[in-house]
Amino acid sequence: MSKIINRRGFASDNNSGVHPGILAALPKVNDGHVIAYGDDPYTEKASAQLRDIFGQETEVYFVFIGTAANVLGLSTVTQSYNAVICPETAHINADECGAPEKFSGCKLLTCNTPDGKLTVDMIASHMHGIGFEHHVQPRVVSITQATELGTVYTLDEIREIARYTHEHGMLLHMDGARISNAAVSLDCGFYEMTGGAGVDVLSFGGTKNGMMYGEAIIFFNPTLCEDFKYRRKQGMQLASKMRYIAAQFSAFLENDLWKENASHANRMARKLYAAVKDISGVEVTRQVESNAVFARIPSHIVPALQDEFFFYVWDEEVSEVRWMCSFDTTEADIEAFISLIRSKL
Amino acid sequence: MSKIINRRGFASDNNSGVHPGILAALPKVNDGHVIAYGDDPYTEKASAQLRDIFGQETEVYFVFIGTAANVLGLSTVTQSYNAVICPETAHINADECGAPEKFSGCKLLTCNTPDGKLTVDMIASHMHGIGFEHHVQPRVVSITQATELGTVYTLDEIREIARYTHEHGMLLHMDGARISNAAVSLDCGFYEMTGGAGVDVLSFGGTKNGMMYGEAIIFFNPTLCEDFKYRRKQGMQLASKMRYIAAQFSAFLENDLWKENASHANRMARKLYAAVKDISGVEVTRQVESNAVFARIPSHIVPALQDEFFFYVWDEEVSEVRWMCSFDTTEADIEAFISLIRSKL
Amino acid sequence: MSKIINRRGFASDNNSGVHPGILAALPKVNDGHVIAYGDDPYTEKASAQLRDIFGQETEVYFVFIGTAANVLGLSTVTQSYNAVICPETAHINADECGAPEKFSGCKLLTCNTPDGKLTVDMIASHMHGIGFEHHVQPRVVSITQATELGTVYTLDEIREIARYTHEHGMLLHMDGARISNAAVSLDCGFYEMTGGAGVDVLSFGGTKNGMMYGEAIIFFNPTLCEDFKYRRKQGMQLASKMRYIAAQFSAFLENDLWKENASHANRMARKLYAAVKDISGVEVTRQVESNAVFARIPSHIVPALQDEFFFYVWDEEVSEVRWMCSFDTTEADIEAFISLIRSKL
Amino acid sequence: MSKIINRRGFASDNNSGVHPGILAALPKVNDGHVIAYGDDPYTEKASAQLRDIFGQETEVYFVFIGTAANVLGLSTVTQSYNAVICPETAHINADECGAPEKFSGCKLLTCNTPDGKLTVDMIASHMHGIGFEHHVQPRVVSITQATELGTVYTLDEIREIARYTHEHGMLLHMDGARISNAAVSLDCGFYEMTGGAGVDVLSFGGTKNGMMYGEAIIFFNPTLCEDFKYRRKQGMQLASKMRYIAAQFSAFLENDLWKENASHANRMARKLYAAVKDISGVEVTRQVESNAVFARIPSHIVPALQDEFFFYVWDEEVSEVRWMCSFDTTEADIEAFISLIRSKL
Repeated sequence: MSKIINRRGFASDNNSGVHPGILAALPKVNDGHVIAYGDDPYTEKASAQLRDIFGQETEVYFVFIGTAANVLGLSTVTQSYNAVICPETAHINADECGAPEKFSGCKLLTCNTPDGKLTVDMIASHMHGIGFEHHVQPRVVSITQATELGTVYTLDEIREIARYTHEHGMLLHMDGARISNAAVSLDCGFYEMTGGAGVDVLSFGGTKNGMMYGEAIIFFNPTLCEDFKYRRKQGMQLASKMRYIAAQFSAFLENDLWKENASHANRMARKLYAAVKDISGVEVTRQVESNAVFARIPSHIVPALQDEFFFYVWDEEVSEVRWMCSFDTTEADIEAFISLIRSKL
Repeated sequence: MSKIINRRGFASDNNSGVHPGILAALPKVNDGHVIAYGDDPYTEKASAQLRDIFGQETEVYFVFIGTAANVLGLSTVTQSYNAVICPETAHINADECGAPEKFSGCKLLTCNTPDGKLTVDMIASHMHGIGFEHHVQPRVVSITQATELGTVYTLDEIREIARYTHEHGMLLHMDGARISNAAVSLDCGFYEMTGGAGVDVLSFGGTKNGMMYGEAIIFFNPTLCEDFKYRRKQGMQLASKMRYIAAQFSAFLENDLWKENASHANRMARKLYAAVKDISGVEVTRQVESNAVFARIPSHIVPALQDEFFFYVWDEEVSEVRWMCSFDTTEADIEAFISLIRSKL
Repeated sequence: MSKIINRRGFASDNNSGVHPGILAALPKVNDGHVIAYGDDPYTEKASAQLRDIFGQETEVYFVFIGTAANVLGLSTVTQSYNAVICPETAHINADECGAPEKFSGCKLLTCNTPDGKLTVDMIASHMHGIGFEHHVQPRVVSITQATELGTVYTLDEIREIARYTHEHGMLLHMDGARISNAAVSLDCGFYEMTGGAGVDVLSFGGTKNGMMYGEAIIFFNPTLCEDFKYRRKQGMQLASKMRYIAAQFSAFLENDLWKENASHANRMARKLYAAVKDISGVEVTRQVESNAVFARIPSHIVPALQDEFFFYVWDEEVSEVRWMCSFDTTEADIEAFISLIRSKL
Repeated sequence: MSKIINRRGFASDNNSGVHPGILAALPKVNDGHVIAYGDDPYTEKASAQLRDIFGQETEVYFVFIGTAANVLGLSTVTQSYNAVICPETAHINADECGAPEKFSGCKLLTCNTPDGKLTVDMIASHMHGIGFEHHVQPRVVSITQATELGTVYTLDEIREIARYTHEHGMLLHMDGARISNAAVSLDCGFYEMTGGAGVDVLSFGGTKNGMMYGEAIIFFNPTLCEDFKYRRKQGMQLASKMRYIAAQFSAFLENDLWKENASHANRMARKLYAAVKDISGVEVTRQVESNAVFARIPSHIVPALQDEFFFYVWDEEVSEVRWMCSFDTTEADIEAFISLIRSKL
C-alpha cells in the first residue's frame, strides 16, 4: 500500500498529515516544565477557548482519539444495563471494534437509515420494554455530525431529536469527528449545532481536519460528569504531557483555522461531485453535504483508480466507493482524479 | 501551581517538555498522505528499529501511553479469572486508577517490598489455590524497571524471577516506563534486560525520557499476541495518524538519543544525591540507581522548597519526598536546589 | 396480578410449578454431608446421564439459569472483540438485559427473521470486515431450539447452519431452554439435534419443562472449556449444594420425564391451535411447532381474557399475543379458554 | 472424596444437606401458576418478613448465592473506579475467583488482620489519594459477620466502623453468609447487628444454615438500589421460579428456625473447642465465637482424621485446620471426632 509514497488520495481525511499551523504550535509550548496530566496553563487556555464557544458552564476534557471520546462520553452517562440508540452506520457501532460494549457494558440498538441520519420514528421503534427488567433500558441517543455517509443533520432535525430524546428521559450524544465540516456545511457556529440544539455530550474532533491527535469531550451539563476525571484515567486516556494536545486545539480554534480547513475540504468534495455527477458510469449515491462523495462505479475500474489515488470501497456488493476530501486536497488533485476516472470509463 | 510558569522542577520526568530532537522529527514525516492506523512506512521503520533491538520475531505495537501499554499487554495474555502478581508500589497497582482490573477483570496480588523490587519469595507467597476454582489463578508476574522507587533490578535478579515465573507456567511482564534509565544504570542493552533475561511482554516507554506521547508494547513470543490488533482498537489505543508516534520512536532510538537523555537524567540524580546525602536533616531513603532521589526532610521546609522547585511528597506521614531528574535538568538546577535546601535547614 | 391466586394460565412455561417427579427427587439426596460445589456422587450421576446422551467426551456443567448458561457458554468461547450472530428475537438479545455484552464484552449482530430462525443467508450478511481491526470479529452463531416464536429448526436446517458456521471458523451455540419441546416436535433424540447436527455449545434447559431451577451447559469439544470451572465460579454460578440441581436433572432424564412433559405441553398447544385457527377474529401468526401459539386478536378483548387466564401481549402494536402451554396445562384449561375466547368475540 | 458416602464431617457448613423444615416448605408453594420472576405472593410474603425484621423502608432482593449477593450488592453502590476495603481473608477477596473485580471493575484494598476483623485503623491506612484521579477511590468498607475465621464483631465494633465509614463518605457492606451464627453468638437480633448498627448493604445468607439455595440482598436505604432490578437480571441472578427461594426464606424465618439451627451449630463448635483445647498437640488458633474451630495439629495425623471426618486444611504451611460445625452436626459426631483425635496423637 505504500508503493506510492505519500501521494495524496481520497481514502480518508486522516490519511492526510498535520496542518502546518497545528505543527507550528507544538514548539511554542515546549519550554520548561509544567504540571503533567493537564494542570498546566496551556490546557487551561484551550479549555477556556472551548468554554467560550460552548458555554462557561460546560465541562471540557481532552482525550487521545475519537473512539475514546465516544466511549468515555457514553459510559459516563450510562449504566451497564442501559442501551444507546444509533444508526447502524454509526462509528460507535461499525468502526470501534466493540469498544462501547466492552467498556460500558451497554447494548447498542441500531437503526437502518437511508442516509446515516436518525429520525424520531426510528428512535421510537426502540422505545419498548421501558421499566421491564428483561430489557436493556435506552438512555442515550447518539448521532454523528457530519454522518459517516457525508450527510448533515439540519438544526431543526437535531432539535427535533433532542426534544424527543429529552421527553423520554434520555440524553443526546453527538459524535463530532467531522463537526467542522458540518458547521461549515450549515454555515453555523459550533454551539448552535450542539448545546444550542439540545446536545448533552459532544465528541469534538480535530484529527480529521488537520490535527495530529487529541479530541475533546464536551459535557453541556456539569452534573453529568462529576466523576469523569476518574473515568478518563481508568479509561487509559489521560495524557501526561497534555500541553501538546491543548496547543493543537488552541491553534485549531484561533483565527478560525478549523473553518478554513473544513471549508476547503467541503469545497473540494463539491467540486468532485459537480464533475462526476454527469459522468456516465458514475452514480453518486449520497447527498454531498460535507467532505465525502459516495458513488457507484464499475468494479473493474476500481484497482486502476486506486493505483494512483488510494480510496476505499464502501460496499463491495454494489461497488459503492467513498472519496474523502481533506484540508490538503488540491484543485489539481480533483482535476487529475476526474481525468483519470473519465479515462477508465 | 502555575505561578512559576514553566520553571524546571523535580516533580516528574513527565513535567518536562519534548526533547528538541524528537520535536524536530515530526515535520519530517508530515508530507502527503499515508495509510492511517499504522500501515505506513514510518511505522514500519520504527517497528523495524525495535525489532533490530529486541529480535526479528518480536511483535511491536504502538499505543498512546504507558498505562495503556501495561493494561493491554496484561489483558492480552490473561483471562478474567487470572491474577497478576506485582509490588504494592507498582504503577499498575497504585497509579492507574484500577484500569487493569476494569479492563482485564483480573485481580492484582500485591507484595510489600522494601525497595519496589519483587523477589521469588514474595511471588511464591501468592502461589496457592492453583487449580482451585474459588481462587484467582496467577498468570503474570509484573516488574517495573527502573522501579517506582528509583531502584533497578540486576540482570541476575530478572533472570531469577523469569526462571521461577516460567517454571510455574506464568509469564513475565515488565513495565519499562523508565527502561532507558535502567539500561544506562546497568550499562546494558535493552534486549539483555528484557527478552534476553526472560521477559515475555514489555511496555517500552519514552515519554518520561523526552518523547511527547506514544509507547510501544513488545511481545517476545508472537503466539502471545495473535489477536492484539483487535484488543488495541477495542482498547481505544489505535492512533489514526500513527506516523507521528513512529517518528518519535525513530528519533528516540537513532544516535542513541534515549541513552544520552537517560544518562544525563541519571547523572543529575547522582549529583543531587552526592550533595544531599551529607546534609544534616536530609536522609536519603532509597538506593539512587536511576533518575530519582527519595529523601526524608523536615516537613516544615517542604513548602518553601516547592515554591521554587516543584516536587511531590511521596509519603506525607514520614515526610518522604521524591525528586525526579529529567533529560533537561541542568547542573545549575541541581546546584541551585542544593543551595536552597541548605538555606532552609 | 396475584388476584387469581395460582390459577393456571398461558403466560409462560415458567409460571408453572415443579413437576411432582422432580420435587420428589429432592428429599432423596438430602441425606448427610457431601462435598460442596459439585464434587459429589449425585452431580457425578447426573453428569454421567448427560454424557450418555451427548457423548462420553462431552463436558457437562451445571449453573442456575438459562441466561447464565447462555452467557457463560458464549463468553467461554469468545474474546471481547468477537461478535455473536443471532436473531433479533433471540433470548440473548431481547430478554437478558444486556448480560451477554456486559459479561463477554462482545457485540451481538442481529438478523431480522420472519419466524425466529436464522438462515445461512442471514448469517452471511454479517460476514464482512473479517480480519479488519475496526470491526468486531464474528465467532459464534447462536440459534434457539425451539425458537422464541415457537418454531423449530429441522435437523437439516441445523446441519446447514453448522456447516456454514464451521466453514467460516465459527462455533455454533444453541439456546435449548425449550429443547425438550423441540425434540418431541422433531421426534428425535437430544444428540441428533445438537452435537450430532454440529452444535458446539448447548444450553440445556429444564426449568421451562418442570424443573425448579438449574440448567446444564454442554460443550461437545472439551478443548473449548478447559478453564470453564473458573468462569462459572467468577460468573457467580457455582452452586454450593449442587446435589439438588443434579437430582432434578437425574429425575428429569429418568423414565423420559422430559419427554412426557414436553409431549404434553406440545399437544396442548396443538389442541389450542386446532380450535382457534378457525375462530373468526383470531389469526394465528406463527407456525405452531412446539408449545406456543401466537395469534392476533382484537385488542379490546385482551383484558377480559387475561382476567381469567393470564398471558402476555407479544406485540402491542399489532395486538399479537403469546399463549404458552406447560407440562401442567390441562385439556380442561384449553377448553375453558377456547370457550372464553368465543364468548368475547 | 466420595468414598465415605454422605458421612457428616467438619468440612463446611454447606456440605450439609437441607433442613427438613426447609425441604417441607417447597411442596407447599408448588400449586398452580404464579407470575414468574418474583411477582408472586410467596416472594411478597418472604420480602415482607424480611422488611418486618430489617425495617419497612428496606429493599429486599433475592438471588441464588452469596457470591452473587456480595458482588451485585457491591457493584450497585460503586462505579468502576471505586475501591472496596476489606480483610485479606474476606470471601469477596479470597474465595470468589475475582468476581467482584470482573463484575464491578473495582479494586479490592485488603488489610491483614489477626482475626478476620477490620478496625478503623486498618481502614484508615487505605484512605489516601482521595480526589486524586490516579488512585482508585474507596467507596465501600466490607466486613463479614461472622468472619471467615469464626470470629464475631461486637455491636460496638460494627458501630465504630460504620461511624468512620460514613464520616468518610463511604458505605458499609456486610457479608452475612453466617449472619445467623453471629446473631446467636451476640444474642441479638438481625437488625441490631446490621441496619441498626450502621450497615448499608447486607448479604443475608441461609444456605450455610440449612437452606438449599437462595440469598437475600438487603438495602437499608432504598435510594441506593433504584436500578437494582436491572442489575440482578443482567447479573444472571433473576430466578424465574422465585417462589421456591421465597418459600425457603419464609420457613427459615418462621418459628426462629434460623436461630435453632445456628444455636445448635455454635454449641457444637463450643463443645468441640472445650474438648480439644486441652489436648496436647492441638493448639486452637482463633477465638471460637461462632460455628468454626481453627487449630494447629500435627500434619501427619491429618489424613487419618480426614478419612473418617472430612475437613479442610486452612494453612498448609503451619498445619492449621478448620473444623466447621453445622445445623446437623450431632453430639455423637463431636464425641467420635474427639476420640479419633486423641487416638491419633
